[in-house]
Amino acid sequence: MALKREYEQIDAIINARSLAIVGATAKPFKFGSYFTSSQLSFGFKGPVYLVNPKEREINGMPCHPDLRSLPEVPDLVYLAVPAHLSMDILKDCADLKVKGVVMLASGFREVGEEGARLEREALSLARRGGFRIIGPNCFGIYNPRNRLALLPGPDFSRRTGDVAFISQSGGFSVHVGRMGKDLGIDFSAIVSYGNGADLDESGLLRYFSRDPQTRIIGGYLEGCRDGREFFHALKEAGARKTVVMWKVGKSGPSQRATLSHTGSLGGSARIWEGMFRQCRVIEVSGVEEMCDVLLALKHLGRKPGRRLLLCGGGGGLGAHGGDLAEAEGMQVPPLGEETASRLRDVLNYPGAAVGNPLDIGTPLTPIPVFAAAMREAALDTGTDILVFDMALNFAHGLFGDAGLEAAAEALLAVRRETGKAVVLVLYSRAIGGGDLALEGTLRGLREKLLAGGVPVYPSMARALRALRLANA
Amino acid sequence: MALKREYEQIDAIINARSLAIVGATAKPFKFGSYFTSSQLSFGFKGPVYLVNPKEREINGMPCHPDLRSLPEVPDLVYLAVPAHLSMDILKDCADLKVKGVVMLASGFREVGEEGARLEREALSLARRGGFRIIGPNCFGIYNPRNRLALLPGPDFSRRTGDVAFISQSGGFSVHVGRMGKDLGIDFSAIVSYGNGADLDESGLLRYFSRDPQTRIIGGYLEGCRDGREFFHALKEAGARKTVVMWKVGKSGPSQRATLSHTGSLGGSARIWEGMFRQCRVIEVSGVEEMCDVLLALKHLGRKPGRRLLLCGGGGGLGAHGGDLAEAEGMQVPPLGEETASRLRDVLNYPGAAVGNPLDIGTPLTPIPVFAAAMREAALDTGTDILVFDMALNFAHGLFGDAGLEAAAEALLAVRRETGKAVVLVLYSRAIGGGDLALEGTLRGLREKLLAGGVPVYPSMARALRALRLANA
Repeated sequence: MALKREYEQIDAIINARSLAIVGATAKPFKFGSYFTSSQLSFGFKGPVYLVNPKEREINGMPCHPDLRSLPEVPDLVYLAVPAHLSMDILKDCADLKVKGVVMLASGFREVGEEGARLEREALSLARRGGFRIIGPNCFGIYNPRNRLALLPGPDFSRRTGDVAFISQSGGFSVHVGRMGKDLGIDFSAIVSYGNGADLDESGLLRYFSRDPQTRIIGGYLEGCRDGREFFHALKEAGARKTVVMWKVGKSGPSQRATLSHTGSLGGSARIWEGMFRQCRVIEVSGVEEMCDVLLALKHLGRKPGRRLLLCGGGGGLGAHGGDLAEAEGMQVPPLGEETASRLRDVLNYPGAAVGNPLDIGTPLTPIPVFAAAMREAALDTGTDILVFDMALNFAHGLFGDAGLEAAAEALLAVRRETGKAVVLVLYSRAIGGGDLALEGTLRGLREKLLAGGVPVYPSMARALRALRLANA
Repeated sequence: MALKREYEQIDAIINARSLAIVGATAKPFKFGSYFTSSQLSFGFKGPVYLVNPKEREINGMPCHPDLRSLPEVPDLVYLAVPAHLSMDILKDCADLKVKGVVMLASGFREVGEEGARLEREALSLARRGGFRIIGPNCFGIYNPRNRLALLPGPDFSRRTGDVAFISQSGGFSVHVGRMGKDLGIDFSAIVSYGNGADLDESGLLRYFSRDPQTRIIGGYLEGCRDGREFFHALKEAGARKTVVMWKVGKSGPSQRATLSHTGSLGGSARIWEGMFRQCRVIEVSGVEEMCDVLLALKHLGRKPGRRLLLCGGGGGLGAHGGDLAEAEGMQVPPLGEETASRLRDVLNYPGAAVGNPLDIGTPLTPIPVFAAAMREAALDTGTDILVFDMALNFAHGLFGDAGLEAAAEALLAVRRETGKAVVLVLYSRAIGGGDLALEGTLRGLREKLLAGGVPVYPSMARALRALRLANA
């Protein structure tokens, strides 16, 4: 009963149908102006009411003096005012019976006793009014279905997906959302919940465990308020969905940071690791690992298998890949004799070395040969995943844009026609200077591959780490 | 005496003043055409003679039927013909007394006994003629001083630097050269030596240990021919220069790959690690780690210190960075009271948290505040390196191109005026699709920072790994 009520309360916030922004303004460098412009340009599907006693109009929209003056009670109130101005507005929220409030400002528990007192006061107003709070000290909610925007997220994807991401850090919630968009990872929602004064990691986990739109739950965690409650929520989430957690605060310096950031106590690394294992959680570190494993899960599913067929043109690729595979606990089994024999018929020239790792001899071969080799490799029943390293530096130099595109098409056809899981390593040259034209080609190529079910990673190390994690 | 002679022999090859390409052709998809066009467009500083009995002229240049017909004996011969055609030409090389031969073709020791026999024959011709061989099964030499090009390297940097890179893999030699160019890492030379039939890792190490142009030696190694000789060469190299080695072939699958690639036996991981430690070698894995540490060594020197001041706008950055720092054996000491007090005067607004990690509260602040905070942070005497995470997703969204540029200028000024080592984490968004405009801005920014002595890394993880390695 309590669970059902909690689910409905959170659902009413995440899928809010009307919205008020208190502290809306056009003045630059204010939470209110960032959020107002993000929200308006992202196109919330429902009425948006702007509230600020000091303004009459913002960008041509009327501005109301307070929540009581609105023509209807909004489902959700975004509070974009400093901490010390929040309590009066929360009183209105309680009186009006709004469903939820997102509190953006910092200056609460994380700054000490005076802030903690304000946070307790906010909570008691929420209890009195029957509404729930996200935050304070957060960036809010991204939901592509009702077009609710995270704080600076007007450019987020409009496509609805099945990944929910919850985060104590606003910054990383946006980082994951943006990287996810670039990689074609679509979200059911992202919730930046900051201090988690009311709705916290446990409540949000319970919600997304039950949300039919969500298949995968990712999280960035600094600490948790109630260890026992969190353990139960996580265990349930792990049983119902695929859960990926990034836990910081395992070191002394990090614990100092989390305390001043969201007032969180980090706790012992070993306890967390044990809990994650028990709850079938995939543990990651960093935005890159988070997004890399989400990409693998999207295209290859959970536990896609550990037996790799490592392919590339150039013996060094397999030598490096073999070492990395072993370090990640993956397997590179010798090729079956049948596969090997068929491959030797195709790769019958000097430089090619048929085996696993498989060296096609040159970075790319004429495309019919390449396509035939990849097809034979894909038909190998002794391996689960075909990993091809494009050896970009050569493949592009020798075969040009058209060669890369034809090779990508050949890999997509293999993926489509054989059903084999295919992963591409395509080094990104965008870490220093250098000219932009190639990066344009690469983006087009990556988009095509991602759309066709072939995850693309910028290094063999990241590809194999992602596969290890997806198998965890 | 023998050492002096070896040095002179290798020097005559690497700094060759005249060049013949045997197997030169304009036919596509041939070693001969790749190398001819690379070499001609890179602009070798000396006569280049094209040799091919089947051609009269290539791209308007005369083509000679054989080496004996050339107007002079070239210092260096590039042999771009298949293995079975090589011996007759090597006989000419021996008779003519050329100084060196680079053998590009594969089909030697790495393919079995027949290839091994050819390799022994090549070697005995070299001994007879008094010339030295690079290869076979390699991509040759890049030297910006005489403009000698690696196989597909016409776009390599023309700037001379102090990093030598030697590699059994041709592919990785080009990869490191290209990535190095993008990062502003300049080379004295890159040598892809393949099977190392004659000149191998030991001889090349001895050469670059004595080369006055070279300060840092990097290497990609699959195995070594003579363990004892290599150990002595490496020990000497480690005593004279900074040496960074990437050793593959530590796992079963990798050993299968190295055997078919360059005919190398991998050997036990533990033995290699012990040898590297004894020889003061920095051990890395992968092109990214190799280039990341070369970048740190260039700008911060060897052993730049382990005491980090982790800065960024957003508490999550420090929380993540703190955990990574501890995992990499770095230190994040609490701020000294004097620094803390000065920083509190500058960062006197809610959201900022003065400490180490240092949270400036928002991803960027108005630039005078940012510049003042970074200056005070840099003056902290309890830390060696200031690491700033630009929180690109926000900084750019809120402050635009101009804001990022002003922040970069502020960091460059701090680096210049205080002498503090500064490292920037600037996430690259170029791993999926997405629009190109921001990448253009980022490339400009990175180039400016790299030119001003501030190394830029695409993630906190890569930055801290590079710092750990530079301290090894």
